[in-house]
Amino acid sequence: MQTPFDTVILNADVATASDRYRADIGIRGGCIAAIGAGIGPGRETIDARGRLVTPGGVDAHCHLDQPMGDGSRMADDFITGTRSAACGGTTTVIPFAAQSRGQSLQAAVDDYHRRADGKAAIDYAFHLIVADPTPSVLREELPRLVAEGCSSFKVYMTYDDLKLNDRQVLDLLAVARREGAMVMVHAENADCIAWLTEQMLDAGLTAPRYHAHARPMLVEREATHRAIALAELADVPILIVHVSGREAVEQIRQAQGMGLKVYGETCPQYLFLTAEHLEQEGFEGAKCICSPPPRDRANQEVIWRGLDNGTFQLLSSDHAPFAFAGPHGKQAHGGDASFDRIPNGIPGLETRMPLLMSHGVMDGRIDIHQFVALTATNAARIYGLFPRKGTLAIGSDADLVIWDLGQPRTIRNEQLHHAVDYTPYEGIEVKAWPAVTLSRGVVVWQDGRYLGREGHGQFLRCDRPAPAQ
Amino acid sequence: MQTPFDTVILNADVATASDRYRADIGIRGGCIAAIGAGIGPGRETIDARGRLVTPGGVDAHCHLDQPMGDGSRMADDFITGTRSAACGGTTTVIPFAAQSRGQSLQAAVDDYHRRADGKAAIDYAFHLIVADPTPSVLREELPRLVAEGCSSFKVYMTYDDLKLNDRQVLDLLAVARREGAMVMVHAENADCIAWLTEQMLDAGLTAPRYHAHARPMLVEREATHRAIALAELADVPILIVHVSGREAVEQIRQAQGMGLKVYGETCPQYLFLTAEHLEQEGFEGAKCICSPPPRDRANQEVIWRGLDNGTFQLLSSDHAPFAFAGPHGKQAHGGDASFDRIPNGIPGLETRMPLLMSHGVMDGRIDIHQFVALTATNAARIYGLFPRKGTLAIGSDADLVIWDLGQPRTIRNEQLHHAVDYTPYEGIEVKAWPAVTLSRGVVVWQDGRYLGREGHGQFLRCDRPAPAQ
Amino acid sequence: MQTPFDTVILNADVATASDRYRADIGIRGGCIAAIGAGIGPGRETIDARGRLVTPGGVDAHCHLDQPMGDGSRMADDFITGTRSAACGGTTTVIPFAAQSRGQSLQAAVDDYHRRADGKAAIDYAFHLIVADPTPSVLREELPRLVAEGCSSFKVYMTYDDLKLNDRQVLDLLAVARREGAMVMVHAENADCIAWLTEQMLDAGLTAPRYHAHARPMLVEREATHRAIALAELADVPILIVHVSGREAVEQIRQAQGMGLKVYGETCPQYLFLTAEHLEQEGFEGAKCICSPPPRDRANQEVIWRGLDNGTFQLLSSDHAPFAFAGPHGKQAHGGDASFDRIPNGIPGLETRMPLLMSHGVMDGRIDIHQFVALTATNAARIYGLFPRKGTLAIGSDADLVIWDLGQPRTIRNEQLHHAVDYTPYEGIEVKAWPAVTLSRGVVVWQDGRYLGREGHGQFLRCDRPAPAQ
Amino acid sequence: MQTPFDTVILNADVATASDRYRADIGIRGGCIAAIGAGIGPGRETIDARGRLVTPGGVDAHCHLDQPMGDGSRMADDFITGTRSAACGGTTTVIPFAAQSRGQSLQAAVDDYHRRADGKAAIDYAFHLIVADPTPSVLREELPRLVAEGCSSFKVYMTYDDLKLNDRQVLDLLAVARREGAMVMVHAENADCIAWLTEQMLDAGLTAPRYHAHARPMLVEREATHRAIALAELADVPILIVHVSGREAVEQIRQAQGMGLKVYGETCPQYLFLTAEHLEQEGFEGAKCICSPPPRDRANQEVIWRGLDNGTFQLLSSDHAPFAFAGPHGKQAHGGDASFDRIPNGIPGLETRMPLLMSHGVMDGRIDIHQFVALTATNAARIYGLFPRKGTLAIGSDADLVIWDLGQPRTIRNEQLHHAVDYTPYEGIEVKAWPAVTLSRGVVVWQDGRYLGREGHGQFLRCDRPAPAQ
Ligand SMILES: [Zn+2]
Ligand SMILES: [Zn+2]
Ligand SMILES: [Zn+2]
Ligand SMILES: [Zn+2]
Ligand SMILES: [Zn+2]
Ligand SMILES: [Zn+2]
Ligand SMILES: [Zn+2]
Ligand SMILES: [Zn+2]
Repeated sequence: MQTPFDTVILNADVATASDRYRADIGIRGGCIAAIGAGIGPGRETIDARGRLVTPGGVDAHCHLDQPMGDGSRMADDFITGTRSAACGGTTTVIPFAAQSRGQSLQAAVDDYHRRADGKAAIDYAFHLIVADPTPSVLREELPRLVAEGCSSFKVYMTYDDLKLNDRQVLDLLAVARREGAMVMVHAENADCIAWLTEQMLDAGLTAPRYHAHARPMLVEREATHRAIALAELADVPILIVHVSGREAVEQIRQAQGMGLKVYGETCPQYLFLTAEHLEQEGFEGAKCICSPPPRDRANQEVIWRGLDNGTFQLLSSDHAPFAFAGPHGKQAHGGDASFDRIPNGIPGLETRMPLLMSHGVMDGRIDIHQFVALTATNAARIYGLFPRKGTLAIGSDADLVIWDLGQPRTIRNEQLHHAVDYTPYEGIEVKAWPAVTLSRGVVVWQDGRYLGREGHGQFLRCDRPAPAQ
Repeated sequence: MQTPFDTVILNADVATASDRYRADIGIRGGCIAAIGAGIGPGRETIDARGRLVTPGGVDAHCHLDQPMGDGSRMADDFITGTRSAACGGTTTVIPFAAQSRGQSLQAAVDDYHRRADGKAAIDYAFHLIVADPTPSVLREELPRLVAEGCSSFKVYMTYDDLKLNDRQVLDLLAVARREGAMVMVHAENADCIAWLTEQMLDAGLTAPRYHAHARPMLVEREATHRAIALAELADVPILIVHVSGREAVEQIRQAQGMGLKVYGETCPQYLFLTAEHLEQEGFEGAKCICSPPPRDRANQEVIWRGLDNGTFQLLSSDHAPFAFAGPHGKQAHGGDASFDRIPNGIPGLETRMPLLMSHGVMDGRIDIHQFVALTATNAARIYGLFPRKGTLAIGSDADLVIWDLGQPRTIRNEQLHHAVDYTPYEGIEVKAWPAVTLSRGVVVWQDGRYLGREGHGQFLRCDRPAPAQ
Repeated sequence: MQTPFDTVILNADVATASDRYRADIGIRGGCIAAIGAGIGPGRETIDARGRLVTPGGVDAHCHLDQPMGDGSRMADDFITGTRSAACGGTTTVIPFAAQSRGQSLQAAVDDYHRRADGKAAIDYAFHLIVADPTPSVLREELPRLVAEGCSSFKVYMTYDDLKLNDRQVLDLLAVARREGAMVMVHAENADCIAWLTEQMLDAGLTAPRYHAHARPMLVEREATHRAIALAELADVPILIVHVSGREAVEQIRQAQGMGLKVYGETCPQYLFLTAEHLEQEGFEGAKCICSPPPRDRANQEVIWRGLDNGTFQLLSSDHAPFAFAGPHGKQAHGGDASFDRIPNGIPGLETRMPLLMSHGVMDGRIDIHQFVALTATNAARIYGLFPRKGTLAIGSDADLVIWDLGQPRTIRNEQLHHAVDYTPYEGIEVKAWPAVTLSRGVVVWQDGRYLGREGHGQFLRCDRPAPAQ
Repeated sequence: MQTPFDTVILNADVATASDRYRADIGIRGGCIAAIGAGIGPGRETIDARGRLVTPGGVDAHCHLDQPMGDGSRMADDFITGTRSAACGGTTTVIPFAAQSRGQSLQAAVDDYHRRADGKAAIDYAFHLIVADPTPSVLREELPRLVAEGCSSFKVYMTYDDLKLNDRQVLDLLAVARREGAMVMVHAENADCIAWLTEQMLDAGLTAPRYHAHARPMLVEREATHRAIALAELADVPILIVHVSGREAVEQIRQAQGMGLKVYGETCPQYLFLTAEHLEQEGFEGAKCICSPPPRDRANQEVIWRGLDNGTFQLLSSDHAPFAFAGPHGKQAHGGDASFDRIPNGIPGLETRMPLLMSHGVMDGRIDIHQFVALTATNAARIYGLFPRKGTLAIGSDADLVIWDLGQPRTIRNEQLHHAVDYTPYEGIEVKAWPAVTLSRGVVVWQDGRYLGREGHGQFLRCDRPAPAQ
């Protein structure tokens, strides 16, 4: 007979990506040690009272304290970002260590470790952003960093300071193939956007709404097709991030149908926002500027469908936190900046899981197993954190959420825990919210109170992702 | 502290549709009561020695002791059929209670219960085959039978004694919608087959190989498109059974892409056989006559791809056991019967899981989680047996397989446990075979010995399937 | 030097399916004998004054004096029908000799000749409708009739008194293949329509508008897919008539892309009407009841696009003339008949060419060569009347239209020449109308006056169509 | 009565893109003045003896005396090139005035006029190649050149000295839209080719065959998708030149189905050659190096199908004449140059029409009207030369071919009239060859003798193409 558990969660209605059952959960050393009926005593006990318990979320796409090149500054660092995540049921985040041109990748990673060290309330890993794939990056830094636990990198096909040309993307894909890493692609055609932007600015069309006009669906479709073709050529899996609508979905499904390992991620903004949100009075529309931009209701339906039929593996937040007020956020270039000079991105770490639980599961669009897969399990698997993260199973970290499904509430920014002064989801009703969040067996959120501790969160070395082997 | 477990499986390398972990498994009352490290003593202990443990298979499409109208007789009844299943790692079978025209559906079910009672070594449920959808069948029998646990019915678009016209299919789909049942469709165009068959017989082309010529891919594609259209019209899910190749796959994927609830099943014969197997000398080809017929290697690849990319939810055997020799099987109409007078079907209950584990998982075409989903979890879910069957989770039946992955072997019919005198997979190498199979906690197969008992298997009442609600 | 021409058309702006040029046209013996600049004198001269001259229309799908089985009677016979056609620029019609069940096909043709003899003002050929494909029809009558000039037959997949099952369609396709005939298919799934109709009538939904609800797009898509599959199996061209919208267009384009000889026809009702036309007050909607029903604006756009991109070869009227008032037409079963008891069909012979010239060519959706191909040349070619009909070339019949493109007018039924008491296009503006129509060199319509003569029109024996050889 | 014709062609079996008839053709002033039966005397008479007469070919894609940047030199100038064209039935060529970087476009055109002046035996127009779209090119030169008769420009997505990036392509498309010009696109992804080439050279794979490996189908598919997307964005027609296989065809058909004005051209090399032709012994494979490379038989079938079903509008030669022997052609960089240093292109001006007549029309893959459209009419129309060129109609130039369809022959380079020392079609049988070719009424080829005259051919100012208005 073993010693008692550190903590036992009693009477949980457990849901994983494949299972649903009633049980007690025994936690020891921050991990799940036993699951069953009456498994024995714990030093601490949390009575789940029959409530739904799911794996803690893995938000595989978010930006925290990422250095900006344009004078703007992100509102959330690792303290406020992970706090907000925990309060929304997310127990792992994977933000980006972003190389700037001329910088070594290792330097970017070192810098990013310094930004994270001792601050995070939940565990975190790093994706790499490769903006300058020099020979030494390709031949030395990437292999070493992959081996050391940064096994995924994001490639940009747009943004002047980040974009790579096709040749550079191919070089990175070749490294990914050799090293067994996963490549994420931001798929928008830079030249098309520049051409459209110039036309609009020439015509005096500078309001926030024109951001959406400068990045129409075909700009994303084209880049998606191209990214898939490059990956097919390099014979390596890729993941298309933040897919916004039908035309890109069709490209991805077509590739999946041909047997290519093409993964898809979408985000709440493509389910809950439309381009009309950019058309608000004055500068208000800037709050919803992100890339790709939200589309329309018909495209929202296609995205929902893609969550249900397996086109998408991930629902991430793409949390990119810029304050609306003040000199560092959306108005970094003034309160009447033209749309192309407004920092891109919206916050969403805390609202991601409640929105999907409420409007996805409880409204009958997806089932609870899909919810778990989309918010946790698949991300862990695709980025080499499985089975440590992303599920509730013996030996996994005791990262979990006990849900309160009974109390409808309205999303209000004042009740969120990020450092951003707005949420684009203000006013949306949800019927679900985490009652309790545990990170490695420790309660970080309970009954509306944040109980997390700076430094509790640890850096996670990612294995080489299974799909990339 | 509870009483000891009935059985504890030590040191299992557990794989489910979503998880993979090392643990002991505690079984009590035929169910899984606890999973964890060192969970406590059991009255009996099975040391898995770190071997892979998966949920026992659910073979959701097999034919056992089904009355035939043409003078043929199935070689396997519930005794030999479930024995064979158990030895191959399958712990649940769902054969068909088949109505004949003029017969009440209840009578068919009653008759089928008599055939099963006291004979099965593993648990079983019934699908219904509706060949005569009279008003009383539609309005009284089906609703009652669904309520009583027969919540799925198969519809035939071909075979003279079973086929329904589009109107009858719609009527059944409407019942399925109202009652929350699942409709399975055998999709081949009867008129096309009859027209081609007549042309071949007229031309003196009677050998077994012409079976495949009389049922080309387009005959299946057309019926698949039509079945999907009927289901779309009736606004109800359907499942296309035994899909054989690309053109049908494309129809299904297209429908899934449009958001329709169209499920797909395929079978080992479409992965391991081709039409060339029907071209063997003399009457040998009859051994591989089944409908739809096996296609070619390019179509096999498409089927493998469909298992991997989520087009298919199920891999079933479509076990339809006819002896090659003797007066009741393939030669029921003589040893030189024309292809249209040879009983359709091939055996496959016992080989299904080893073939997929070996050539799917171990050869790297699918992962272990897909294996579990395709052979067990999805079937349980789609047919209303989840979570009792199809997974390893607290409260589920202790149906499981401990795998021997170390000893390559060659499939030989003499080593199988069905009552059929051949296997179409004779000579194929496999690298995996069940070492131990448990049915509700009871060992039914161990180290090459069948330990099952007639009557251990129980009839399972199926719930209304979740996807049909 | 030859004798003078019978007639010379001076100064024509000639447009054919491929050419556009200024010339005089010399007519001799009812045929075009010479085209050129200053080709010499004619006994009669028509000065085209530089106006557009096109081949006379070939309306390859219209119903005239066709015996009905339900007590209704067509308003137009060969006198009024061909009169109306001539006034709208059509110089050849191909109505249907329709077999009724139990009748020999020859008897149907004989009867139809009696109905046409001595009445037509323009030339005509016959399609056959085969409603009862008995062995003698298949083996004797069809081969003989094809040889004698009835080389196309229409097959119905719906309508209780006409519909054939798949096997019968295959038998007819096989005859078509052997004899080199063209098969036209009315593609709607009869069982689906019957099932929906019953549901609507059961629910008391009997108004004309429910006609459209009982025949949704998928009913047409399914039958289109099936018809194409049958033709693919029989290895023979087919033509899908009266295509109404996107889903059917996609099936046809897909087949064309695969290299199948699948032709498509559409009609003005799918360009100018929508299902809303069936929703008019009271029984008015009955005026627009035809099958398939008009769809919506998005589908209209798809149909326009299909005219432009080559998906469709034909624009026909599907003129099916039933009076709105009186006991023989739309109200044959009463002024409040349920939608399923209202004769199907709308008039359109006279308006077909002006509508397409005006809204197609002059509005820039198609060019003048496409207009000629769609209204004349392709029909002649597909039905074995080329090069006698359908073009302006040496040796062709002098069937032509001199257009008045200068005077906008509003379509009013009172100005049309059919015997129907309404037109569904009432009130639509057109910018084009025939100024002069010639049939075999004889003026039949000029400056608003009908100059045709009963009996001038001759029966045309159709050759075996080139695409079917 | 007019004066006699200059020439009368008696008893012609005339075929145009839409018509087929027997007639005499009267020519006056180099143009067709009359067509008819017994139209009157001519000063000269050519008895066609009932032989097939078609419009002379318009080869809309060929390279003659085009300055090369790599030390190679084209074997054909305007003398030998137009001679060869005439002998093969082509009466109009449209080669390319190619700008080099740093050069003004006007200078390129001026230079090209000097190369053509007084040399051509048949008429010619110029496409522009824009390799350096400077502001003055975009704003001044192109508008002026379009107005002066160079209304089409080719854009390269590959080749280091010619390729434009997406932004530059968009700028050119915008000019095309404003000026009503047609843009032709060479669609291959330069970065992919460079990446693959480097890999092959690194691996020592330098033989001619690796040219095909460095330019796989997906490289063309990707660029085709991208080009279409750019044209869709700029809202302007484009024409994809030299399409080689299925994946590109699918992109084009998809776009056409969506209603985009996307035109397609293919070439004989994609019908008659495969990648195996590059695998010949030693350096022989260099003879068939062109871009995109020939594919395989399955792709050939798709190309044939695309000619038949309307996907392609043009069959051009892409004649790019490099001698195999000598220091200026294929061996400009040595007889063992690596594949990336071998001049790209193959000759084909003279064989284009006989190959298509023989293997297309006479073998039943396309009909004679499609032949005329593909080889003459469509090119004239798409590039603003219609109706002067591309058809046989009143007022058109008397450019025509009288065919000899009776004498099979084998293509031998020694019998061709270009200045290249090989033909890739050596040894292919053809059943058709021009008996007589007329250019503006003047015989330039008759009974195996070249009768053309340097300087007879005139520069043609192209109108703004109708499809681009
Ligand atoms: Zn991004
Ligand atoms: Zn992002
Ligand atoms: Zn079946
Ligand atoms: Zn079966
Ligand atoms: Zn019809
Ligand atoms: Zn009709
Ligand atoms: Zn090119
Ligand atoms: Zn070229």
